[in-house]
This record gives sequence, structure tokens and C-alpha cells, in this order.
Amino acid sequence: MSNLLNRKILLASRPVGMPDESNFEFIEENVPELQDGEVLIRSLYLSVDPYMRGRMSAAKSYAKPYEVGQPFKGGVVGKVVESKNSRFEAGQYVDGLLEWAEYNVSDGSGLRRLNPEMAPVTTALHVLGMPGLTAYFGLLYIGEPKEGETVVVSGASGAVGTVVGQIAKLKGCRVVGIAGGDDKCAYLTEELGFDAAINYKAEENLRKALKEACPNGVDVYFDNVGGHVSDAVMSLINFQSRTAICGQISQYNADKPPVGPRVAGQLLTTSSLMKGFIVSDYAQHNKECLAQLAQWVREGKIKYRETIVEGFDNTIDAFLGLFRGDNIGKQLVKVAEE
Amino acid sequence: MSNLLNRKILLASRPVGMPDESNFEFIEENVPELQDGEVLIRSLYLSVDPYMRGRMSAAKSYAKPYEVGQPFKGGVVGKVVESKNSRFEAGQYVDGLLEWAEYNVSDGSGLRRLNPEMAPVTTALHVLGMPGLTAYFGLLYIGEPKEGETVVVSGASGAVGTVVGQIAKLKGCRVVGIAGGDDKCAYLTEELGFDAAINYKAEENLRKALKEACPNGVDVYFDNVGGHVSDAVMSLINFQSRTAICGQISQYNADKPPVGPRVAGQLLTTSSLMKGFIVSDYAQHNKECLAQLAQWVREGKIKYRETIVEGFDNTIDAFLGLFRGDNIGKQLVKVAEE
Repeated sequence: MSNLLNRKILLASRPVGMPDESNFEFIEENVPELQDGEVLIRSLYLSVDPYMRGRMSAAKSYAKPYEVGQPFKGGVVGKVVESKNSRFEAGQYVDGLLEWAEYNVSDGSGLRRLNPEMAPVTTALHVLGMPGLTAYFGLLYIGEPKEGETVVVSGASGAVGTVVGQIAKLKGCRVVGIAGGDDKCAYLTEELGFDAAINYKAEENLRKALKEACPNGVDVYFDNVGGHVSDAVMSLINFQSRTAICGQISQYNADKPPVGPRVAGQLLTTSSLMKGFIVSDYAQHNKECLAQLAQWVREGKIKYRETIVEGFDNTIDAFLGLFRGDNIGKQLVKVAEE
Repeated sequence: MSNLLNRKILLASRPVGMPDESNFEFIEENVPELQDGEVLIRSLYLSVDPYMRGRMSAAKSYAKPYEVGQPFKGGVVGKVVESKNSRFEAGQYVDGLLEWAEYNVSDGSGLRRLNPEMAPVTTALHVLGMPGLTAYFGLLYIGEPKEGETVVVSGASGAVGTVVGQIAKLKGCRVVGIAGGDDKCAYLTEELGFDAAINYKAEENLRKALKEACPNGVDVYFDNVGGHVSDAVMSLINFQSRTAICGQISQYNADKPPVGPRVAGQLLTTSSLMKGFIVSDYAQHNKECLAQLAQWVREGKIKYRETIVEGFDNTIDAFLGLFRGDNIGKQLVKVAEE
């Protein structure tokens, strides 16, 4: 044991419906002594992501459930404090799937070294990391947008949605975003170049608003939210449309299996495709796609925004805020100064 | 005008819910004189198919709605009575998309000459025609079954389902059929080699029965019926499963948009695909696939059964019987002797 004190966040209990503070527990413990091959990392930024809600439940899913009494894990950008691993040295920036903690000890597997001169290190948690890859794979490998087609993205102002819309613009599509708030919609159209954005919270008739924004129907739907927003989009899909299901944030906190209009008939009569996916399905393409995303970011063709909450103590609030729609762009928690 | 009397069946009115006799009208009229390039065909067999229900409604779909006051069209096998088209001569067997009528006059486009020595001419309306191709394309191009996987097909004892299951067996899969009746289920397992068949009408807990029949889950689902049968199957899909939506017969007569468990979450957490299709999506492959189907039929690897109703007068009853589940294998109407 070193005498360095660490704090972690554990899953205290599994939530039913919307999680609250009682499902989380902060603990303190000393950082263990480093063994050969290990590296000690101080957390700088934690990523909070909607998919983590799924891992709080016991249900079988693509991502293994968190264990009750064990720490949350997620994307973390940190700085190497001490290294007994020849691949890393003190002072380096890294990111990896690590515990929600102020410090992590890692054997180096899955850790990625970051070059802060190439891009701000936080981008490893969004546009140049999992959310960026998620956007890229779902849009291009499932949606397969063609020039002139109409692409709709829900959850459009989030870390994934903002990248989806901008890539679709680069591919020559008409891009319509759906988001919850006029400020978010203004960001999409004025800063990111979306052709239209719809504030679903302000629309009494979402389908009508969508129909006006998509006069030629919907060819590609990138779905982050599900529920009634998706019902409206699916009612407007074109022949041979493609829907990539990336997330269903509106449904994650449901306490019983959600019911809604059946989509099978709509898929049938339009010869359309709907496919769920997780970023790791396409892991063999990570390297080339990250290179492409990095180039677009450097060239200013993909912009991003971060919503940063300060302080490890506020991690849970930042996470729960995802379900309230608090964030524009990527939601991060800043744990320590770079 | 010749003095040859013809009878036709028209769409008298659009049904709400289950169609009945009042939606159909028989008319009599003389066959017109043949013009150059035309051919006169006497109907021998009419095909009645579930998708025709969709065409009775005005709603936009993959198949154009029938017009009120105009004849139904569908697959017809007939014999050339007279020809002013150099491609055809009297006495030849043909099939094509023709009117529900005792006689059709055609300009020859879309007409296929049939060789009765290669296969019984009725097979052009099922295993060596549209239903056979539908089974082939949906199973192999969307389902992509791999050896050892579990394939479930609903509407398993119909013209499409029987072919789906037998091709899946040829590909080395475990095949489970869902059908409505013990006689149908016995046909599937005893005559067609399905590994298991479930009579959904007799099961109080369809999901439980399916789970027992699919101990390794469901990798491919070929869906002809939709509704609660599909709900049970979808609850058992495996990671990266594929669902081909071929039909939704349980929903065709619904008088309001059907509601049920949302599938998007299930597709998401299993990285699964669901795709609707129509046989014409793959028309460029018709020739090679028909050749393959014909070979399997000749080799006895694909068997078929026909349910034949005698008499043009009974066409409507044969059609409505599809929705009552009257048929095993392909439902045909015999209009005249070969």
C-alpha cells in the first residue's frame, strides 16, 4: 500500500427506473503499491455516457453489467504518475476504460497514449474516441448515406449525434437533427451546418415538423433516443431506408418493457433495414476511422463542443444530467488539472 | 369482340379489417379480338397470396394498390389459346402476373413459357416462382444462415415458409417452424425434416415452447406473420441475429396501426439486424436462383404441397382462407383442366 488516498464510485444498488444518488457509493482507499508491468494513472477527465445506464441493470446486453459493490468503469483520460511498464512513462497522457476513480492502476492493456500536441486530450473521449467511432460506423456502415439523401439523427446535439450530422453533411446529404431545446437546435444549424433542427420538446406535432423538414422523406435514420421521437421518424422512411440504432436513451429508465407502434410492417412495405450495433462490432476499422476523424477535426470539417462539470464529487450529477438532457456535445467530468 | 365470354373478379370496395365477399365483384364480358403482338391465355391455375391483402388498401406500399372497379392481378398459370405474338404459340403453357379471370389477353411482356416436362406447371406459382424466390432471397441474402445456427420461420407451413425451412436445413441449420395446427406441424417435422415445429394456436406460453425448441437462441428469424408470434421470437434473438421480414399476415387485417413491444432496444442490445424486403428487390438474381431451386426440387431436396380449390367461383374463398390458415403449402385455385 502506498499512502496515496484514492476515491472511487461503486454501484451501490441496481436502479429501477431513473437512477438516483442512492444507487451510487463513494469509497476511499489507499492506492496499492505498483507491481512490475503496472502503471499508476491520475484521472483528469471522466466520460459519462448514456450506455452506462444499461450496465447498471442486471439484464443481458452487449455490455456486461456492472457488479453491485464494484466500481463503475468508463472512458478516462489521465496522466501517468508512475510507471513500472516499459510502454509508459510518468507525465504521459493516456486514455482507457478505467474505473470512476481519482487514480487507476493498470497493467497497460487497452491503454492508449495521447499526444496533446495533435489534439486536446479530451477529444479522446468523444470525437476522436468511442463516440466519434460510434457515429462513423453507424452512419457509414449501416446508414450508407448517398449524396442527396436525407439523414435524420435523434439525440443530435450529443457527442455522437453532432458527429453523425457533420459526417452526413460531408457526404452531401440533407441533414435534420432532433434535439431537446432551442439552444441545442441553434447550435446544430448555426454552428454545425445542419440543414434543419427540430426541438422535439416544443413540437406538438413532431411528425408534421419532421415532414416539413424532410420533404423527400427519410433515407437514413441514426437513432440515439427511441420512443415517440423514433415513431415519428419511422413513419416517414423511404423505400430501402436504413436505420442505425445506436441508443435508446428515452427508454433506458423505463421500469417495464416499452410498447409502441410496431415497426415491422413499415420496414416490410418499404424494404427497409434497421440494425442495432455497438462500436466494438467494427473494432477492426478503429485505426483507419480515427485517422479520418482526426483529419476532419484538423481541417475544421468536424467541430465539437464539451460540457464540462468540475470535480469528481459531481460525477453522478453529470451522469444523471445525460437523461435530463443537460449537455450540449460531450459531457465530461474534470477530475484534476492537466 | 370475339364471342368468347370471360369472367373477371374486380375490387368492388376497399375493406376495413378482414375482407369479405362484398369487397369483390364478378363481372362477365366478351374477350376482345386479338391485336398483332397479343396472345390469348386461358387460366388454368390462379395463385392467391397474402400480400394481395395489402394491395386491396389504398395505403402506399411496395406493391401498388388495386384500383376499385378494376380486376385483381396475381400469378396465373395458363395455356395459350391463340397467339399473334411470335414468341408464343397455341398450346404452350405460360405464367405471368395476370388478371383474376378465366381468360387474359397479354402483349407478352412478363410472360414466361413453362415446360411441363421439367416440372409440374403449378410449381411456377410457388417453389419455382415468386414464393420460392422470396424464400431464397430473404433467407440467404438477409438471414445469411451459417451451419449450426438456429433458424426460426413463422408461417412455416405456407408456400414461402416450407421452402425457407428446407433451404435452411440444406445449409446445416437447426430449423424450427411455427404454424397454426398440429397437422401443419406434423407435416413440417415428418415430411420436410424440420427439427421442431410449434403450433402457436395450442401453446399457452409460446415463448417457453420456443425457448425449449431453440436451446441456443435464435440466429435467423424469417418472419411471415408478425404480431405476438414475432414478439416471442424476438425475445430470444442472439447477438448479431438477422430477421428477414417477408410478411405480417397477422396484421394485414388490423383496422388501426398495430402496437406491441418495441423491438429497437432488443436489436440494439444484440447488435441485430431486421430488414423488410420484397422479392423484386433481388430480381437480378432470379434466373440463377430459380435454377438452383429447380435442381433441389429435381433432387428431392425440396418438397412441396399444394392446397387446391376447384373452380373460379371459389377464388375469393380460397383467398380469404389464407387468413384463416386453411392451406398447407401453396394455395391455388384450379380454373380449368390442363
